[in-house]
Parts: sequence; C-alpha cells; structure tokens
Amino acid sequence: MSAPASRTVYSFSLYVPYAHTDQMGVVYYANYLVYFEMARGAMLREAGLPYGEMERQGLALPVVEAHCVYRQSAHYDDEICVASRCSLSGARLRIDHRIQRDSVLLAEGYTLHACVGRDGKVVRPPAALRRLAGATG
Amino acid sequence: MSAPASRTVYSFSLYVPYAHTDQMGVVYYANYLVYFEMARGAMLREAGLPYGEMERQGLALPVVEAHCVYRQSAHYDDEICVASRCSLSGARLRIDHRIQRDSVLLAEGYTLHACVGRDGKVVRPPAALRRLAGATG
Amino acid sequence: MSAPASRTVYSFSLYVPYAHTDQMGVVYYANYLVYFEMARGAMLREAGLPYGEMERQGLALPVVEAHCVYRQSAHYDDEICVASRCSLSGARLRIDHRIQRDSVLLAEGYTLHACVGRDGKVVRPPAALRRLAGATG
Amino acid sequence: MSAPASRTVYSFSLYVPYAHTDQMGVVYYANYLVYFEMARGAMLREAGLPYGEMERQGLALPVVEAHCVYRQSAHYDDEICVASRCSLSGARLRIDHRIQRDSVLLAEGYTLHACVGRDGKVVRPPAALRRLAGATG
Repeated sequence: MSAPASRTVYSFSLYVPYAHTDQMGVVYYANYLVYFEMARGAMLREAGLPYGEMERQGLALPVVEAHCVYRQSAHYDDEICVASRCSLSGARLRIDHRIQRDSVLLAEGYTLHACVGRDGKVVRPPAALRRLAGATG
Repeated sequence: MSAPASRTVYSFSLYVPYAHTDQMGVVYYANYLVYFEMARGAMLREAGLPYGEMERQGLALPVVEAHCVYRQSAHYDDEICVASRCSLSGARLRIDHRIQRDSVLLAEGYTLHACVGRDGKVVRPPAALRRLAGATG
Repeated sequence: MSAPASRTVYSFSLYVPYAHTDQMGVVYYANYLVYFEMARGAMLREAGLPYGEMERQGLALPVVEAHCVYRQSAHYDDEICVASRCSLSGARLRIDHRIQRDSVLLAEGYTLHACVGRDGKVVRPPAALRRLAGATG
Repeated sequence: MSAPASRTVYSFSLYVPYAHTDQMGVVYYANYLVYFEMARGAMLREAGLPYGEMERQGLALPVVEAHCVYRQSAHYDDEICVASRCSLSGARLRIDHRIQRDSVLLAEGYTLHACVGRDGKVVRPPAALRRLAGATG
C-alpha cells in the first residue's frame, strides 16, 4: 500500500547556543544533526514513545544514514524551529526534518534508522512506532 | 557598599539531548559549561540585554574562569533546570549557577567574565549589566 | 573532460575521545561530520592550502550538503582513520571520506562546498584548489 | 608522607578543529575540558592504563570537579599542547593541565576524579594508578 497522504508534523524549537556557532559566525554544520536528534526526541516524547523508555525496554534506533542540505545560515540566539515527520521505509524508520527561522528555510534533511533489539538484531518496528510513521498495516 | 542582600535568580530549563550523554550513560562533564552558557544567554535575553545585541554594540564578555562541582549525574531526556544569578567582582562579572532535576542538585559552579570593548581592552560593565548584577553604585 | 582516473587520497587519524561517545557506548552520529572536517583541514594543510590562511585571504568553503552512511560503530579510544579525496562538481568542491578502524569500514560520506568570496558570492575555486581536486583545466 | 618532589609530565597535542571555534573566532570555553579529557586519555594510554580497559575491568573515574582559567585565546588550526600531571588527593585523583601554543600559556586548570567500582561505590585507586600519581605508599 502507498504511503499515507498526510502524516503528523511535529515541531520543536530552540534558541541557538553560542556553543554551536563557529568562527564564520554561523551554526557549525554538524550541529544541525544534533537539532535533528533533539527534534526526534521531542517527537517521540510527544507521541508517548519517549526514546529513553524505548531503550530501557530493549529497543534502539541507531542512525544508519544522515543527510542534510544547508540553505541559509542560522546565527547565535536565533529561535529556530525544526519540523519533523516520520515514515517507514521497509524495516527502517525515516525521519524528515526542515529547520526554519520564521519563514526562512535554513536546512532540510533526513535520518534513516534501523530498529534493533537488545541483541543488536534488526526487529520489526513496534506497532506504536508504525502508527507514528503513518503505517496502516 | 556591600553586595546586595538579594538578587534576581533567573531560571532556564532544557531536556538533555542524546548528543550530551557519554558511554557512562550520563551527561559528559564539559556539557555542563554549555548549560551554564545557555542559561547565561537566557538570563541576558530575559533581562533585556541579549548578548548578540551586546556584541553588535561592541561589548563582549569572554570567560576568564570556569568552575563546576558535579554532585549527581544527569541523564538523557532529563528535564534539568539551571538557576543563575549575576554579581560583580570588581570589573568582572560573576555568574553563579545551580543545575537541578526537580529538587535534586546535579551540579553547581560559576563563570567569571571580563567586559571588553571592540579593541579587546577591559571596560567598565555598562549600567544595565551592573543593575542586573545587583550593583547599586 | 572526464574526472581524472586517479587523485591523491589524504589520510588523517585520531583517537576517539570520550566526549564523542553517547550512552549507546558508540560515537554519536553527528561527530562523524566533525571527523570529516578535521580530515578536510588536515588535507588542506598537507596540500599547502591551510584553510585558516584561505579564510584570511577572503575565501571560504561553507558546507552546502553533507551525507553520511554508518556501517559499523566506532568506540572510545579507537584509533580511526579518515581517508579523504577531493573533486570538483561544477563550481562546487566535493570531498569524499571513508572512516576505518584498521580494515573495518565504519562510515563513508561526503560534503559539498561552495567557494565564496568576502562578499559571500560564489567564486571559481582558485587554481591550487582545482589542482588538489585533480582538475586539469 | 608529603607529595613527591617530581612527577612525570605527560604531553598531548592536537590541531584545533573548526568545530571548536565560536563566533568570537576563538575556541569555545567548554572545549578546553574536552582537551583536558583527551590529554587524560593519552596519559593513561601512555602509562599502560588505557581508560577503556579500566572501565571494562569495572573501575571508573567520574569527574567530581573541574576548574579552568583562561589566559589567552586558542584559534582554529593552532597546534596546542596539553601538559598533564597526576596526583592523589586522598581517595581522589587530581589531574593538573596546562595548555600552550608554543611557549604561550593559553589555559590551565584541573579535574578531580573519584575512583568508583561497578557498584558506583568509591574504591581505593589501584596500585598502577597510585604509581602514576607519584604516590609511594
């Protein structure tokens, strides 16, 4: 069955700390992946699936791929907003992110995650995660 | 005149990102200095003295000393709260921080800042900053 | 003309600091982009084009895209080696990286860079950079 | 018995990555604690007590206090050198660090560590660690 037409978009915002700037006066590029992770954590928490809880129950979501396109620079103390949506790509979870300052798109990208059990073996994403990803099956 | 009996305490809170944990399963020690900085930034913003604005006007507050005592560990996704208060120590600004998770004290420490102008020379903290620090003179 | 058949591969190695691990006991994913940057810096330094010098002369190489595929985990104190090679993709510089621990491939990816002048406008990569990228024109 | 008159000083050097700079154009203050940790790790590795091995054997050295005085700024691509020496302060390990660029002192400080076993309880530092710290008892 095709991907569902609409999925919930989760939103997370933060003020850029000085720690994240570099000598170009903008956010250092690797920190966008940290924003992706913070937004992912907020999404899971908001969806009632806090990641810490998931780990304690023996399920982990290691990142197997990350991609980011940088459009405009973010600066110190900018309030930036990360919009996140989740989908399934086979046994993998894909999370798409867009980072904006007001209406300006700063960066967009995604992360791809395996679902693994305590033994490190790939498992089927549990029902709650499949629902979050908009899967109907 | 002696230091004022009471000064405003500013409060800043955040959820610990996965990025800040280490393989001991707790927040890596250097990140507490990042929390100090985020709390400092929030305090200055709230007090109407956003640091970015200050820098654009030619005033910087480089850290000349930092100290932190670690009491209890912070963990992933903990909501931690940083209480901050500001005082003057001669021409230097001192900011004291206490980091808690609910009523549990996790860490406490301070940073000491020089006030420098565009030429890197030490200047007297401007009136707004002295007021924030509770100075009455 | 097609891309040159062989280009120099630069090599950079480091011991994984504790700071870079997370509570899964492995290197946090965003830090691989830091390793890419450290390897890029070492490559430019070795090629006689230290990036700091480049910036002082008014040329910057902001990242416009980053991609990383994670194959195996890196751990604390692993000695990891980043192999880097540089090519041109139009006016953009592309740097491909492979990160290994001994013969084990841990991660691979690339960054894409614009060449911009002091005014932020895109410029043609200077000759030395085109040579590093194996361009013959 | 008093502290020994001389102890071995260990040396660790690195090139400052771009990731560690901030928009002041200098190394962000929290990163000096990362340099302390990298130097500590190198010291323990060199002394035949690699910290990863220590942890696998059930001994951890969590930081209970950190202090840093910032003298001069470090910049991107500076080759900086961290000199480290280790002493005992009761059941605690103290490591003193001095960070230099050539003969210029950039920062100095220390970390204080508890020695704890698998159960998190404080234990006496093992003999090898006491020897590293110059203890003769």
